[in-house]
Amino acid sequence: MTQEELEIMRHSFAHVLMQALEKMYGAIPAVGPVIENGFYHDFDCNYQVKEEDLPKIEKTMKKIIKDNLVIEKEVMSIDDAIKALQEKKYIYTAELAEDLRKEGETEVSFYKQGDFMNMCRGPHCATTRDLNPRAFKLTKVAGAYWKGDEKNKMIQRIYGVAFATPEELEKYLELLEEAKKRDHRKLGKELDLFCFSDLVGSGLPMFTPKGVVLIDELKKHIEGVCRRYGFEKVMTPHLSKIDLFEASGHAQKFSEELFRVSSGQGHDFALKPVQCPHQTQIYASRPRSYRELPIRYMESEKQYRAEQSGEVGGLSRVYAITVEDGHTFCRVDQVKDEIKNLVNIIKDFYTALGLWDNHWVSLSVRDYDHPEKYIGNDKDWDDCERILEEVADEMGLDVKRCEGEAALYRPKLDFMFKDALGKEIQIPTVQIDFATPKRFELSYTNKEGKDEYPVMVHRAILGSYERFLVLLIEHFAGAFPLWLSPVQVKIISVGEGHIEYCKKLADEFRAQDIRVEVDDNNETVGNKIRKTIKEKVPYMLVIGDKEMNSDKLNIRDRGSDKVREISKEDFFNEVADKVRNKK
Amino acid sequence: MTQEELEIMRHSFAHVLMQALEKMYGAIPAVGPVIENGFYHDFDCNYQVKEEDLPKIEKTMKKIIKDNLVIEKEVMSIDDAIKALQEKKYIYTAELAEDLRKEGETEVSFYKQGDFMNMCRGPHCATTRDLNPRAFKLTKVAGAYWKGDEKNKMIQRIYGVAFATPEELEKYLELLEEAKKRDHRKLGKELDLFCFSDLVGSGLPMFTPKGVVLIDELKKHIEGVCRRYGFEKVMTPHLSKIDLFEASGHAQKFSEELFRVSSGQGHDFALKPVQCPHQTQIYASRPRSYRELPIRYMESEKQYRAEQSGEVGGLSRVYAITVEDGHTFCRVDQVKDEIKNLVNIIKDFYTALGLWDNHWVSLSVRDYDHPEKYIGNDKDWDDCERILEEVADEMGLDVKRCEGEAALYRPKLDFMFKDALGKEIQIPTVQIDFATPKRFELSYTNKEGKDEYPVMVHRAILGSYERFLVLLIEHFAGAFPLWLSPVQVKIISVGEGHIEYCKKLADEFRAQDIRVEVDDNNETVGNKIRKTIKEKVPYMLVIGDKEMNSDKLNIRDRGSDKVREISKEDFFNEVADKVRNKK
Repeated sequence: MTQEELEIMRHSFAHVLMQALEKMYGAIPAVGPVIENGFYHDFDCNYQVKEEDLPKIEKTMKKIIKDNLVIEKEVMSIDDAIKALQEKKYIYTAELAEDLRKEGETEVSFYKQGDFMNMCRGPHCATTRDLNPRAFKLTKVAGAYWKGDEKNKMIQRIYGVAFATPEELEKYLELLEEAKKRDHRKLGKELDLFCFSDLVGSGLPMFTPKGVVLIDELKKHIEGVCRRYGFEKVMTPHLSKIDLFEASGHAQKFSEELFRVSSGQGHDFALKPVQCPHQTQIYASRPRSYRELPIRYMESEKQYRAEQSGEVGGLSRVYAITVEDGHTFCRVDQVKDEIKNLVNIIKDFYTALGLWDNHWVSLSVRDYDHPEKYIGNDKDWDDCERILEEVADEMGLDVKRCEGEAALYRPKLDFMFKDALGKEIQIPTVQIDFATPKRFELSYTNKEGKDEYPVMVHRAILGSYERFLVLLIEHFAGAFPLWLSPVQVKIISVGEGHIEYCKKLADEFRAQDIRVEVDDNNETVGNKIRKTIKEKVPYMLVIGDKEMNSDKLNIRDRGSDKVREISKEDFFNEVADKVRNKK
Repeated sequence: MTQEELEIMRHSFAHVLMQALEKMYGAIPAVGPVIENGFYHDFDCNYQVKEEDLPKIEKTMKKIIKDNLVIEKEVMSIDDAIKALQEKKYIYTAELAEDLRKEGETEVSFYKQGDFMNMCRGPHCATTRDLNPRAFKLTKVAGAYWKGDEKNKMIQRIYGVAFATPEELEKYLELLEEAKKRDHRKLGKELDLFCFSDLVGSGLPMFTPKGVVLIDELKKHIEGVCRRYGFEKVMTPHLSKIDLFEASGHAQKFSEELFRVSSGQGHDFALKPVQCPHQTQIYASRPRSYRELPIRYMESEKQYRAEQSGEVGGLSRVYAITVEDGHTFCRVDQVKDEIKNLVNIIKDFYTALGLWDNHWVSLSVRDYDHPEKYIGNDKDWDDCERILEEVADEMGLDVKRCEGEAALYRPKLDFMFKDALGKEIQIPTVQIDFATPKRFELSYTNKEGKDEYPVMVHRAILGSYERFLVLLIEHFAGAFPLWLSPVQVKIISVGEGHIEYCKKLADEFRAQDIRVEVDDNNETVGNKIRKTIKEKVPYMLVIGDKEMNSDKLNIRDRGSDKVREISKEDFFNEVADKVRNKK
């Protein structure tokens, strides 16, 4: 089935749904478009449809499909259409028809199947029998404002999914189920990684000790990688006079999203929405010579955006994100090598997470039809775009040129990965920026003793820790690789008499820098094992009499229900090797 | 000389200064009090006194001293006094006399020496000859508002220092000179540790790569020490709804110093002035059992105070400090051991910095005459104070009971150290808090399955990184111990032909985790050596032909002008050992 055929089929499903709703509840239709993976239909009726009604509605839909109704198109003059719709009391569709008349339409089409008929642009299948009754499913009931405007009446909406085959539907539903299981909000609570408080407020997550292990291990890893490529860490304040962001242009760009800070003492600051302007000020803090370039700064500090309070949730949308941000200040002749460096950092980092193999790169350039949307002169833009092209070419990147995807000031390379559920992730980016150094009048003394502007290269590797945790939690379904696992080994005591030995063993593990937890709760061993499995701890040891008297360790690996015997030394080596090599 | 005799002498110096100013510039006196280490006198005259005038003024003062003028006291009725002062056109002293009359004074005393006479409470020396002309020095010229009120006229002030003997004066001046050399603002710039930007604003330091090395090494060290004592790292947001600080009492306590955060979208948050309330919310995020106590949280996050903008400067007074803060939640029967743990952490940490040997401890308890100043019931207070006393006793701490020094909610142990210049430093503190867990209704399930309040123990070890850097910079005069040094080894190339070898050597050092910098600038070797000495780098290597052909290293240690030969392996071991043992 082509994408076009799929969409026609999904559209016809929407009509069948509406026909069923009219039949069952006397519902009158509003809009019913095709969406990704399926369709929805808005409608109005006195009865409030509930989730538990969906199977009944599906049954009625299947009956309509089985009836093999012919789907007929009829063209009417706009005036006749409005009259017909008003007669049917289809007030929403009638309003749409009136809108069309105002726009100058003279004719519209209707689609009819059995006793159901509504104005519709189409196209549709030939008969309802063309729909596979085993390849669709209604998924959700929701409220929706008519025309999406909250000043209008709230009516009802039912969502459905539909695929070419029952197998594809099945696969999609499994993916959906899996995504629910992996939802970072659910796992974050189960694994005790972060929490929220009503007193603090939503959009302001607090990270528990286990969540901080993830963040700190990621930080250590990325800082280590970047340091090897010459990055040095800086630390800039979260506050600034607004002057800084007026100079950078961010005050204008973010305006509504900028948090303003004031006090009873008359202070007036802004919370930084990005890190770049502050970092330019460290560069500018003393004279620079061509000899010391490139200068590479990185930091992992918070930045703030006044997201709409209705939109914050979990870790995906929060008021402050801790951004691993970095900037290189270099000479024009160094830009190309620098970008290659940055691509290599991205490659190193994502390879360690097993994500590199499935990626493509967007060469995000200007929208050439609208050069007025961008800041900077044409020559600089041409030069930057050419450099990125050459890098992509020389490094053999799987690159696609995407016009209109450049940032306001600069073209960029954007790296796209796919997570375990096939969801596309866009995080890493490399951007060449000739404009910012000019705005801030940054300079260096060249070989001839003259002042020149440096080039600024922006890069993100993992982006923000908060959003990256969402990716990691959902990608690994909480079963993190050993080096990231907040608890690497769980030691379970069988009885009271084994607790002391467990604690001694735990101390030995800690001395090897292994993160270990002892479960000495007064519960059944079965219970403690089940908890440990749910916590997805990589290694588990159950300690009873037999184990206390053995000089070997009895390890149960995550995902296995077998126990293997290994000497302490071999186990320590195994862990050290896996952690070092990020296995 | 007793403290009282010292103060009489300093007061008489102030009069001699004023007598000289009247004689030289026709100045009229305002106030002239004794201050720490000396005195000042405010005065008004048409001539604007400059720093370079001070030696001339000192000369006149010495002449007055040599003249051996008798200092006589005269008592007058308040009305005669005002009349006399008005006749002399001493308008400032006359105003003070009028103030005294309003307060009901009927008599005042004057002091007279030669042709100078002014109203003064005294006492004074018998003659000007009692002052040692070699034991004083004028130090500074400044402006001062009459009566300290900026609505009044700005008049002039001269500061002086005076001691019992010329030797003590000399010692003090040397200390002053040394303190100036060690000033963290001066060294911070010279060593390139932090910087400021007009666009960002004062009170908002930005840390350069070298400054961040100091912060990160400190962080690594303190986190390591605390982890050994069971602390786990958490991360809490900088923002919160005001509700949290209303519940904790900080909104009321800080009010004017609280930064409020708003946006065009209608947000209303506060920036946290302390870390404790947020950490209580992590504790409260799930049920707790007596078995999992003590729970110990630590974090190194920023907290914010709206300091008056005129008062911010350097790193000592800033809008945001990065506080290494920690809290233990435990049972009552665990408090004592926990406090001992914390005292041991403080001991470990300050011993590594060589500061532990010179300390005393304040047992800061209530002001028993004013119990109404404190929050919490008497029994809790008595218990907490008793526990601290017992700990101090059992650990043999050099403790002094300081009544009225307790915090609002709790008694505490405050640790006092002396830096290299003898300045007292008060940073570490351990505080028992029964009140906060009750305010936030924290609880744990005890052995009997009932809910109980945990006890909260607050502790600071290094306090804030910003202020601790001030201490470190000034204490070590920038010559940091090896483990803290931003650059541990500097490699200096003699000529162009040696640069490549220097870089190769640097890479070998880096592979050993040694922080190294190459100075390959096109300058004389002498110049580069002088720069390196000024940067106080622990080890220096100058690489010329001879060194390139040697298989040994030629190391010059900081503070030495000799070069010693050592094998690479031995040097690496030496560095690793010093860093590991914080030598």
